[in-house]
Amino acid sequence: MSGSLVIAGLGPGDETLLTLAVQAALADATDILGYKPYVERIAARPGLTLHPSGNREELARAEAALKIAAGGGRAVIVSSGDPGVFAMAAAVFEVIEACPHWRDIDIQVLPGVTAMLAAAARAGAPLGHDFCAINLSDNLKPWALIEKRLRLAAEADFAIALYNPRSASRPDGFARALEVLKEAGAADRLVIFARAVTTAGEHIETHVLCEAAPEIADMRTLVIVCNAATRRAGRWVYAPRHVS
Amino acid sequence: MSGSLVIAGLGPGDETLLTLAVQAALADATDILGYKPYVERIAARPGLTLHPSGNREELARAEAALKIAAGGGRAVIVSSGDPGVFAMAAAVFEVIEACPHWRDIDIQVLPGVTAMLAAAARAGAPLGHDFCAINLSDNLKPWALIEKRLRLAAEADFAIALYNPRSASRPDGFARALEVLKEAGAADRLVIFARAVTTAGEHIETHVLCEAAPEIADMRTLVIVCNAATRRAGRWVYAPRHVS
Repeated sequence: MSGSLVIAGLGPGDETLLTLAVQAALADATDILGYKPYVERIAARPGLTLHPSGNREELARAEAALKIAAGGGRAVIVSSGDPGVFAMAAAVFEVIEACPHWRDIDIQVLPGVTAMLAAAARAGAPLGHDFCAINLSDNLKPWALIEKRLRLAAEADFAIALYNPRSASRPDGFARALEVLKEAGAADRLVIFARAVTTAGEHIETHVLCEAAPEIADMRTLVIVCNAATRRAGRWVYAPRHVS
Repeated sequence: MSGSLVIAGLGPGDETLLTLAVQAALADATDILGYKPYVERIAARPGLTLHPSGNREELARAEAALKIAAGGGRAVIVSSGDPGVFAMAAAVFEVIEACPHWRDIDIQVLPGVTAMLAAAARAGAPLGHDFCAINLSDNLKPWALIEKRLRLAAEADFAIALYNPRSASRPDGFARALEVLKEAGAADRLVIFARAVTTAGEHIETHVLCEAAPEIADMRTLVIVCNAATRRAGRWVYAPRHVS
Protein backbone atom coordinates (compact mmCIF):
# COMPACT_ATOMS: atom_id res chain seq x y z
CA MET A 1 0.00 0.00 0.00
CA SER A 2 1.46 3.37 -0.92
CA GLY A 3 1.04 6.15 1.56
CA SER A 4 0.52 9.85 1.11
CA LEU A 5 0.86 13.18 2.85
CA VAL A 6 -1.68 15.98 2.49
CA ILE A 7 -0.85 19.40 3.95
CA ALA A 8 -4.27 20.95 4.44
CA GLY A 9 -5.70 24.30 5.47
CA LEU A 10 -8.70 24.22 7.81
CA GLY A 11 -9.68 27.82 7.13
CA PRO A 12 -10.08 30.51 9.78
CA GLY A 13 -12.37 28.66 12.20
CA ASP A 14 -15.93 28.34 10.88
CA GLU A 15 -16.33 24.75 9.69
CA THR A 16 -18.33 25.90 6.65
CA LEU A 17 -15.20 27.67 5.39
CA LEU A 18 -13.43 24.35 4.80
CA THR A 19 -13.10 23.37 1.17
CA LEU A 20 -14.67 20.17 -0.11
CA ALA A 21 -11.18 18.87 -0.95
CA VAL A 22 -9.95 19.31 2.62
CA GLN A 23 -13.11 17.73 4.01
CA ALA A 24 -12.51 14.69 1.77
CA ALA A 25 -8.84 14.44 2.79
CA LEU A 26 -9.78 14.52 6.49
CA ALA A 27 -12.40 11.81 5.93
CA ASP A 28 -9.83 9.60 4.17
CA ALA A 29 -6.93 10.11 6.61
CA THR A 30 -5.43 7.43 8.82
CA ASP A 31 -3.41 10.00 10.79
CA ILE A 32 -3.93 13.71 11.41
CA LEU A 33 -1.08 15.79 12.79
CA GLY A 34 -0.93 19.42 13.82
CA TYR A 35 -0.75 22.06 16.50
CA LYS A 36 -3.10 20.97 19.31
CA PRO A 37 -5.86 23.61 18.87
CA TYR A 38 -6.14 22.75 15.17
CA VAL A 39 -6.20 18.97 15.68
CA GLU A 40 -8.93 19.53 18.28
CA ARG A 41 -11.17 20.78 15.46
CA ILE A 42 -11.20 17.24 13.99
CA ALA A 43 -13.79 14.71 15.20
CA ALA A 44 -12.43 11.34 16.38
CA ARG A 45 -13.50 8.22 14.46
CA PRO A 46 -12.42 4.56 14.25
CA GLY A 47 -9.33 4.08 12.08
CA LEU A 48 -8.08 7.64 12.66
CA THR A 49 -5.18 8.50 14.94
CA LEU A 50 -4.90 12.12 16.05
CA HIS A 51 -1.39 13.46 16.76
CA PRO A 52 -1.63 16.85 18.48
CA SER A 53 1.66 18.61 19.20
CA GLY A 54 3.09 21.89 20.45
CA ASN A 55 3.54 25.24 18.81
CA ARG A 56 7.28 25.10 18.12
CA GLU A 57 7.42 21.48 16.93
CA GLU A 58 6.93 22.07 13.20
CA LEU A 59 9.96 20.15 11.94
CA ALA A 60 9.38 17.15 14.22
CA ARG A 61 5.73 17.11 13.12
CA ALA A 62 6.69 17.25 9.44
CA GLU A 63 9.13 14.39 9.94
CA ALA A 64 6.57 12.29 11.80
CA ALA A 65 4.03 12.82 9.00
CA LEU A 66 6.55 11.88 6.30
CA LYS A 67 7.39 8.70 8.24
CA ILE A 68 3.71 7.75 8.43
CA ALA A 69 3.32 8.34 4.69
CA ALA A 70 6.49 6.36 3.92
CA GLY A 71 5.05 3.50 5.97
CA GLY A 72 1.87 3.42 3.91
CA GLY A 73 -0.39 5.65 6.01
CA ARG A 74 -2.52 8.50 4.72
CA ALA A 75 -1.20 11.37 6.82
CA VAL A 76 -2.78 14.81 6.89
CA ILE A 77 -1.03 17.76 8.50
CA VAL A 78 -3.54 20.46 9.39
CA SER A 79 -2.92 24.18 9.68
CA SER A 80 -5.41 26.87 10.46
CA GLY A 81 -6.17 29.12 7.46
CA ASP A 82 -3.98 28.24 4.49
CA PRO A 83 -1.06 25.82 4.99
CA GLY A 84 1.24 27.90 2.77
CA VAL A 85 0.84 31.19 4.66
CA PHE A 86 3.04 31.27 7.78
CA ALA A 87 2.15 27.64 8.37
CA MET A 88 3.21 24.02 7.90
CA ALA A 89 3.89 23.64 4.17
CA ALA A 90 7.28 25.38 4.31
CA ALA A 91 8.34 23.22 7.27
CA VAL A 92 7.57 20.02 5.33
CA PHE A 93 9.61 21.15 2.31
CA GLU A 94 12.45 22.17 4.61
CA VAL A 95 12.59 18.58 5.90
CA ILE A 96 12.33 17.20 2.36
CA GLU A 97 15.22 19.40 1.21
CA ALA A 98 17.38 18.01 4.01
CA CYS A 99 16.27 14.38 3.41
CA PRO A 100 16.04 13.75 -0.35
CA HIS A 101 14.92 10.13 0.17
CA TRP A 102 11.47 11.53 1.02
CA ARG A 103 11.05 13.28 -2.32
CA ASP A 104 9.18 10.36 -3.88
CA ILE A 105 6.36 10.44 -1.35
CA ASP A 106 2.96 11.40 -2.76
CA ILE A 107 2.52 14.91 -1.33
CA GLN A 108 -0.32 17.35 -1.94
CA VAL A 109 -0.86 20.83 -0.52
CA LEU A 110 -4.55 21.75 -0.22
CA PRO A 111 -5.08 25.50 0.09
CA GLY A 112 -7.52 27.10 2.50
CA VAL A 113 -9.05 30.45 3.36
CA THR A 114 -6.28 32.33 5.16
CA ALA A 115 -7.18 34.64 8.04
CA MET A 116 -6.72 37.91 6.14
CA LEU A 117 -9.29 36.89 3.52
CA ALA A 118 -11.82 35.94 6.18
CA ALA A 119 -11.17 39.14 8.15
CA ALA A 120 -11.46 41.22 4.99
CA ALA A 121 -14.76 39.54 4.09
CA ARG A 122 -16.25 40.29 7.51
CA ALA A 123 -15.12 43.93 7.38
CA GLY A 124 -15.97 44.64 3.73
CA ALA A 125 -13.27 44.75 1.06
CA PRO A 126 -10.08 46.27 2.50
CA LEU A 127 -7.91 43.97 0.32
CA GLY A 128 -9.63 44.99 -2.92
CA HIS A 129 -6.52 46.82 -4.07
CA ASP A 130 -2.82 45.80 -3.89
CA PHE A 131 -1.81 44.46 -0.48
CA CYS A 132 0.84 42.61 1.51
CA ALA A 133 1.02 40.17 4.41
CA ILE A 134 3.66 40.42 7.13
CA ASN A 135 4.16 38.02 10.02
CA LEU A 136 5.01 40.19 13.05
CA SER A 137 6.62 37.31 14.93
CA ASP A 138 10.39 37.75 15.14
CA ASN A 139 11.02 34.13 16.16
CA LEU A 140 12.32 33.31 12.66
CA LYS A 141 13.57 36.67 11.35
CA PRO A 142 15.22 39.78 12.78
CA TRP A 143 13.00 42.59 14.01
CA ALA A 144 14.93 45.08 11.85
CA LEU A 145 13.66 43.28 8.74
CA ILE A 146 10.08 43.56 9.97
CA GLU A 147 10.51 47.32 10.48
CA LYS A 148 12.05 47.71 7.03
CA ARG A 149 9.14 45.86 5.43
CA LEU A 150 6.59 47.91 7.32
CA ARG A 151 8.21 51.16 6.11
CA LEU A 152 8.39 50.01 2.49
CA ALA A 153 4.82 48.66 2.60
CA ALA A 154 3.55 51.99 3.92
CA GLU A 155 5.49 53.85 1.23
CA ALA A 156 3.99 51.56 -1.42
CA ASP A 157 0.52 52.29 0.03
CA PHE A 158 -0.25 48.60 0.28
CA ALA A 159 -3.02 47.45 2.56
CA ILE A 160 -1.00 45.53 5.16
CA ALA A 161 -2.28 42.35 6.80
CA LEU A 162 -0.40 41.71 10.03
CA TYR A 163 -0.33 38.10 11.23
CA ASN A 164 0.58 37.18 14.83
CA PRO A 165 0.65 40.79 16.01
CA ARG A 166 1.07 40.12 19.74
CA SER A 167 1.74 37.25 22.09
CA ALA A 168 2.68 36.78 25.72
CA SER A 169 6.33 36.39 24.74
CA ARG A 170 6.23 39.40 22.37
CA PRO A 171 4.07 41.99 24.15
CA ASP A 172 5.70 45.11 22.66
CA GLY A 173 6.41 44.41 18.99
CA PHE A 174 2.98 45.44 17.76
CA ALA A 175 3.15 48.82 19.52
CA ARG A 176 6.51 49.39 17.84
CA ALA A 177 5.03 48.35 14.51
CA LEU A 178 2.28 50.95 14.87
CA GLU A 179 4.93 53.59 15.69
CA VAL A 180 6.92 52.66 12.58
CA LEU A 181 3.78 52.95 10.45
CA LYS A 182 2.97 56.37 11.95
CA GLU A 183 6.49 57.58 11.18
CA ALA A 184 6.07 56.23 7.64
CA GLY A 185 3.04 58.44 7.08
CA ALA A 186 0.25 55.96 7.77
CA ALA A 187 -1.16 57.72 10.86
CA ASP A 188 -4.49 58.51 9.19
CA ARG A 189 -5.14 55.08 7.76
CA LEU A 190 -7.98 52.88 8.99
CA VAL A 191 -6.93 49.79 10.95
CA ILE A 192 -9.18 46.74 11.30
CA PHE A 193 -8.71 44.47 14.32
CA ALA A 194 -10.34 41.12 13.58
CA ARG A 195 -10.20 38.78 16.56
CA ALA A 196 -11.09 35.07 16.36
CA VAL A 197 -12.66 35.73 12.99
CA THR A 198 -15.60 33.46 11.96
CA THR A 199 -15.67 31.76 15.41
CA ALA A 200 -18.09 32.24 18.31
CA GLY A 201 -15.64 34.71 19.86
CA GLU A 202 -15.37 36.92 16.77
CA HIS A 203 -14.90 40.61 17.50
CA ILE A 204 -14.10 43.21 14.87
CA GLU A 205 -13.35 46.88 15.43
CA THR A 206 -11.96 49.58 13.18
CA HIS A 207 -9.94 52.61 14.29
CA VAL A 208 -7.82 55.32 12.78
CA LEU A 209 -4.21 54.18 13.19
CA CYS A 210 -3.00 57.12 15.29
CA GLU A 211 -5.83 56.46 17.77
CA ALA A 212 -5.51 52.66 17.88
CA ALA A 213 -4.39 51.11 21.17
CA PRO A 214 -1.97 48.21 20.58
CA GLU A 215 -3.64 46.29 23.43
CA ILE A 216 -6.67 45.69 21.22
CA ALA A 217 -4.66 42.97 19.44
CA ASP A 218 -3.67 39.58 20.78
CA MET A 219 -2.38 36.33 19.25
CA ARG A 220 -5.83 35.50 17.85
CA THR A 221 -6.15 38.88 16.12
CA LEU A 222 -5.53 39.53 12.46
CA VAL A 223 -4.83 43.21 11.86
CA ILE A 224 -5.37 44.93 8.52
CA VAL A 225 -3.82 48.36 8.10
CA CYS A 226 -5.86 49.72 5.20
CA ASN A 227 -4.42 51.66 2.29
CA ALA A 228 -4.71 55.44 2.29
CA ALA A 229 -7.82 55.57 0.08
CA THR A 230 -9.82 53.04 2.10
CA ARG A 231 -13.01 54.40 3.62
CA ARG A 232 -16.24 53.47 5.32
CA ALA A 233 -19.57 52.88 3.57
CA GLY A 234 -22.07 52.43 6.39
CA ARG A 235 -20.86 49.47 8.48
CA TRP A 236 -18.44 48.37 5.76
CA VAL A 237 -14.79 49.28 5.10
CA TYR A 238 -13.54 49.02 1.53
CA ALA A 239 -10.61 49.94 -0.73
CA PRO A 240 -11.85 51.77 -3.84
CA ARG A 241 -10.89 50.07 -7.08
CA HIS A 242 -9.84 53.29 -8.82
CA VAL A 243 -6.61 54.95 -7.72
CA SER A 244 -5.39 58.05 -9.54
CA MET B 1 -39.94 38.18 2.35
CA SER B 2 -36.61 39.86 2.98
CA GLY B 3 -33.92 39.47 0.37
CA SER B 4 -30.19 39.14 0.68
CA LEU B 5 -26.98 39.53 -1.26
CA VAL B 6 -24.04 37.14 -0.93
CA ILE B 7 -20.73 38.06 -2.59
CA ALA B 8 -19.06 34.69 -3.00
CA GLY B 9 -15.69 33.36 -4.13
CA LEU B 10 -15.73 30.24 -6.31
CA GLY B 11 -12.06 29.46 -5.78
CA PRO B 12 -9.49 29.05 -8.55
CA GLY B 13 -11.35 26.55 -10.73
CA ASP B 14 -11.44 23.05 -9.25
CA GLU B 15 -14.94 22.55 -7.84
CA THR B 16 -13.54 20.77 -4.78
CA LEU B 17 -11.87 24.04 -3.75
CA LEU B 18 -15.24 25.68 -3.09
CA THR B 19 -16.05 26.16 0.57
CA LEU B 20 -19.10 24.50 2.08
CA ALA B 21 -20.54 27.97 2.82
CA VAL B 22 -20.32 29.04 -0.82
CA GLN B 23 -21.81 25.74 -1.96
CA ALA B 24 -24.78 26.32 0.38
CA ALA B 25 -25.25 29.92 -0.80
CA LEU B 26 -25.30 28.80 -4.44
CA ALA B 27 -27.87 26.08 -3.63
CA ASP B 28 -30.08 28.64 -1.87
CA ALA B 29 -29.85 31.44 -4.47
CA THR B 30 -32.71 32.71 -6.62
CA ASP B 31 -30.33 34.72 -8.81
CA ILE B 32 -26.64 34.34 -9.59
CA LEU B 33 -24.77 37.21 -11.21
CA GLY B 34 -21.21 37.48 -12.45
CA TYR B 35 -18.72 37.63 -15.26
CA LYS B 36 -19.83 35.10 -17.88
CA PRO B 37 -17.03 32.49 -17.46
CA TYR B 38 -17.70 32.37 -13.71
CA VAL B 39 -21.49 32.10 -14.02
CA GLU B 40 -20.94 29.27 -16.50
CA ARG B 41 -19.43 27.25 -13.66
CA ILE B 42 -22.90 27.12 -12.00
CA ALA B 43 -25.37 24.35 -12.95
CA ALA B 44 -28.84 25.52 -14.01
CA ARG B 45 -31.80 24.40 -11.88
CA PRO B 46 -35.51 25.32 -11.53
CA GLY B 47 -36.02 28.49 -9.50
CA LEU B 48 -32.57 29.88 -10.30
CA THR B 49 -31.95 32.68 -12.78
CA LEU B 50 -28.41 33.06 -14.09
CA HIS B 51 -27.26 36.59 -15.03
CA PRO B 52 -23.95 36.43 -16.92
CA SER B 53 -22.40 39.76 -17.89
CA GLY B 54 -19.26 41.27 -19.37
CA ASN B 55 -15.85 41.95 -17.94
CA ARG B 56 -16.14 45.71 -17.43
CA GLU B 57 -19.70 45.75 -16.05
CA GLU B 58 -18.89 45.47 -12.35
CA LEU B 59 -20.89 48.47 -11.13
CA ALA B 60 -23.98 47.63 -13.21
CA ARG B 61 -23.79 44.04 -11.95
CA ALA B 62 -23.50 45.20 -8.33
CA GLU B 63 -26.50 47.48 -8.79
CA ALA B 64 -28.57 44.74 -10.42
CA ALA B 65 -27.78 42.37 -7.53
CA LEU B 66 -28.70 44.97 -4.91
CA LYS B 67 -32.01 45.58 -6.70
CA ILE B 68 -32.79 41.85 -6.68
CA ALA B 69 -32.00 41.68 -2.95
CA ALA B 70 -34.08 44.80 -2.24
CA GLY B 71 -36.97 43.13 -4.06
CA GLY B 72 -36.81 40.05 -1.86
CA GLY B 73 -34.57 37.80 -3.96
CA ARG B 74 -31.57 35.85 -2.73
CA ALA B 75 -28.88 37.20 -5.03
CA VAL B 76 -25.36 35.77 -5.20
CA ILE B 77 -22.59 37.58 -7.03
CA VAL B 78 -19.82 35.14 -7.94
CA SER B 79 -16.14 35.91 -8.45
CA SER B 80 -13.37 33.52 -9.25
CA GLY B 81 -10.95 33.02 -6.35
CA ASP B 82 -11.78 35.32 -3.44
CA PRO B 83 -14.37 38.08 -3.96
CA GLY B 84 -12.32 40.59 -1.96
CA VAL B 85 -9.09 40.23 -4.00
CA PHE B 86 -9.25 42.28 -7.22
CA ALA B 87 -12.88 41.21 -7.58
CA MET B 88 -16.52 42.12 -6.98
CA ALA B 89 -16.74 42.96 -3.26
CA ALA B 90 -15.18 46.42 -3.66
CA ALA B 91 -17.54 47.23 -6.55
CA VAL B 92 -20.58 46.42 -4.40
CA PHE B 93 -19.40 48.65 -1.57
CA GLU B 94 -18.64 51.42 -4.04
CA VAL B 95 -22.29 51.32 -5.14
CA ILE B 96 -23.48 51.19 -1.53
CA GLU B 97 -21.37 54.22 -0.62
CA ALA B 98 -23.00 56.17 -3.46
CA CYS B 99 -26.52 54.93 -2.62
CA PRO B 100 -26.95 54.88 1.17
CA HIS B 101 -30.55 53.59 0.87
CA TRP B 102 -29.05 50.16 0.13
CA ARG B 103 -27.11 49.98 3.40
CA ASP B 104 -29.84 48.05 5.20
CA ILE B 105 -29.75 45.12 2.81
CA ASP B 106 -28.57 41.85 4.31
CA ILE B 107 -25.12 41.49 2.75
CA GLN B 108 -22.51 38.80 3.36
CA VAL B 109 -19.09 38.35 1.80
CA LEU B 110 -18.00 34.68 1.63
CA PRO B 111 -14.25 34.31 1.15
CA GLY B 112 -12.66 31.82 -1.22
CA VAL B 113 -9.29 30.40 -2.17
CA THR B 114 -7.64 33.17 -4.20
CA ALA B 115 -5.42 32.21 -7.15
CA MET B 116 -2.09 32.93 -5.45
CA LEU B 117 -2.86 30.45 -2.64
CA ALA B 118 -3.81 27.75 -5.13
CA ALA B 119 -0.75 28.44 -7.29
CA ALA B 120 1.51 28.40 -4.23
CA ALA B 121 0.02 25.08 -3.08
CA ARG B 122 0.67 23.46 -6.46
CA ALA B 123 4.26 24.75 -6.57
CA GLY B 124 5.18 24.13 -2.94
CA ALA B 125 5.29 26.96 -0.40
CA PRO B 126 6.60 30.15 -2.07
CA LEU B 127 4.31 32.32 0.12
CA GLY B 128 5.55 30.80 3.37
CA HIS B 129 7.30 34.04 4.26
CA ASP B 130 6.09 37.69 3.97
CA PHE B 131 4.55 38.47 0.57
CA CYS B 132 2.45 40.91 -1.43
CA ALA B 133 -0.13 40.83 -4.21
CA ILE B 134 -0.12 43.34 -7.06
CA ASN B 135 -2.68 43.58 -9.85
CA LEU B 136 -0.72 44.37 -13.03
CA SER B 137 -3.76 45.76 -14.84
CA ASP B 138 -3.51 49.52 -15.24
CA ASN B 139 -7.19 49.93 -16.10
CA LEU B 140 -7.91 51.38 -12.65
CA LYS B 141 -4.56 52.84 -11.59
CA PRO B 142 -1.61 54.56 -13.24
CA TRP B 143 1.25 52.41 -14.51
CA ALA B 144 3.74 54.56 -12.57
CA LEU B 145 2.15 53.38 -9.32
CA ILE B 146 2.55 49.75 -10.39
CA GLU B 147 6.26 50.32 -11.10
CA LYS B 148 6.73 52.06 -7.77
CA ARG B 149 5.11 49.16 -5.92
CA LEU B 150 7.21 46.59 -7.79
CA ARG B 151 10.41 48.42 -6.83
CA LEU B 152 9.44 48.74 -3.18
CA ALA B 153 8.25 45.11 -3.04
CA ALA B 154 11.57 43.93 -4.46
CA GLU B 155 13.47 46.09 -1.97
CA ALA B 156 11.38 44.62 0.87
CA ASP B 157 12.21 41.12 -0.44
CA PHE B 158 8.56 40.16 -0.46
CA ALA B 159 7.43 37.23 -2.54
CA ILE B 160 5.29 39.02 -5.13
CA ALA B 161 2.09 37.52 -6.54
CA LEU B 162 1.22 39.20 -9.82
CA TYR B 163 -2.46 39.05 -10.84
CA ASN B 164 -3.59 39.72 -14.44
CA PRO B 165 -0.04 39.89 -15.80
CA ARG B 166 -0.92 40.10 -19.49
CA SER B 167 -3.94 40.52 -21.72
CA ALA B 168 -4.63 41.24 -25.38
CA SER B 169 -5.13 44.91 -24.55
CA ARG B 170 -2.01 45.07 -22.35
CA PRO B 171 0.59 42.94 -24.15
CA ASP B 172 3.69 44.80 -22.89
CA GLY B 173 3.13 45.64 -19.23
CA PHE B 174 4.40 42.35 -17.90
CA ALA B 175 7.68 42.58 -19.83
CA ARG B 176 8.16 46.05 -18.35
CA ALA B 177 7.35 44.70 -14.90
CA LEU B 178 10.07 42.05 -15.27
CA GLU B 179 12.54 44.78 -16.34
CA VAL B 180 11.66 46.87 -13.29
CA LEU B 181 12.20 43.86 -11.04
CA LYS B 182 15.56 43.14 -12.67
CA GLU B 183 16.66 46.74 -12.12
CA ALA B 184 15.49 46.44 -8.52
CA GLY B 185 17.88 43.56 -7.92
CA ALA B 186 15.50 40.62 -8.33
CA ALA B 187 17.16 39.13 -11.45
CA ASP B 188 18.22 35.94 -9.66
CA ARG B 189 14.90 35.20 -8.03
CA LEU B 190 12.77 32.20 -9.00
CA VAL B 191 9.52 33.01 -10.84
CA ILE B 192 6.58 30.60 -10.91
CA PHE B 193 4.15 30.81 -13.85
CA ALA B 194 0.92 29.07 -12.85
CA ARG B 195 -1.57 28.96 -15.71
CA ALA B 196 -5.22 27.91 -15.28
CA VAL B 197 -4.32 26.55 -11.88
CA THR B 198 -6.39 23.57 -10.59
CA THR B 199 -8.25 23.23 -13.93
CA ALA B 200 -7.79 20.69 -16.73
CA GLY B 201 -5.53 23.19 -18.53
CA GLU B 202 -3.19 23.70 -15.58
CA HIS B 203 0.42 24.29 -16.50
CA ILE B 204 3.13 25.35 -14.06
CA GLU B 205 6.72 26.24 -14.84
CA THR B 206 9.46 27.85 -12.81
CA HIS B 207 12.32 29.94 -14.16
CA VAL B 208 15.01 32.27 -12.89
CA LEU B 209 13.67 35.80 -13.42
CA CYS B 210 16.44 37.02 -15.73
CA GLU B 211 15.80 34.05 -18.03
CA ALA B 212 11.99 34.19 -17.97
CA ALA B 213 10.22 35.06 -21.23
CA PRO B 214 7.26 37.38 -20.62
CA GLU B 215 5.27 35.50 -23.28
CA ILE B 216 4.93 32.54 -20.89
CA ALA B 217 2.22 34.52 -19.07
CA ASP B 218 -1.29 35.29 -20.27
CA MET B 219 -4.51 36.52 -18.63
CA ARG B 220 -5.11 33.11 -17.03
CA THR B 221 -1.63 33.02 -15.47
CA LEU B 222 -0.83 33.84 -11.88
CA VAL B 223 2.83 34.75 -11.50
CA ILE B 224 4.74 34.45 -8.24
CA VAL B 225 8.09 36.19 -8.06
CA CYS B 226 9.69 34.35 -5.14
CA ASN B 227 11.70 36.03 -2.41
CA ALA B 228 15.49 35.93 -2.60
CA ALA B 229 15.88 32.95 -0.24
CA THR B 230 13.36 30.73 -2.04
CA ARG B 231 14.78 27.52 -3.46
CA ARG B 232 13.93 24.16 -4.95
CA ALA B 233 13.59 20.91 -3.02
CA GLY B 234 13.11 18.25 -5.67
CA ARG B 235 10.00 19.21 -7.65
CA TRP B 236 8.93 21.72 -5.01
CA VAL B 237 9.69 25.43 -4.59
CA TYR B 238 9.54 26.87 -1.07
CA ALA B 239 10.43 29.94 0.98
CA PRO B 240 12.46 28.94 4.05
CA ARG B 241 10.88 30.00 7.32
CA HIS B 242 14.13 31.26 8.84
CA VAL B 243 15.59 34.51 7.49
CA SER B 244 18.70 35.97 9.08
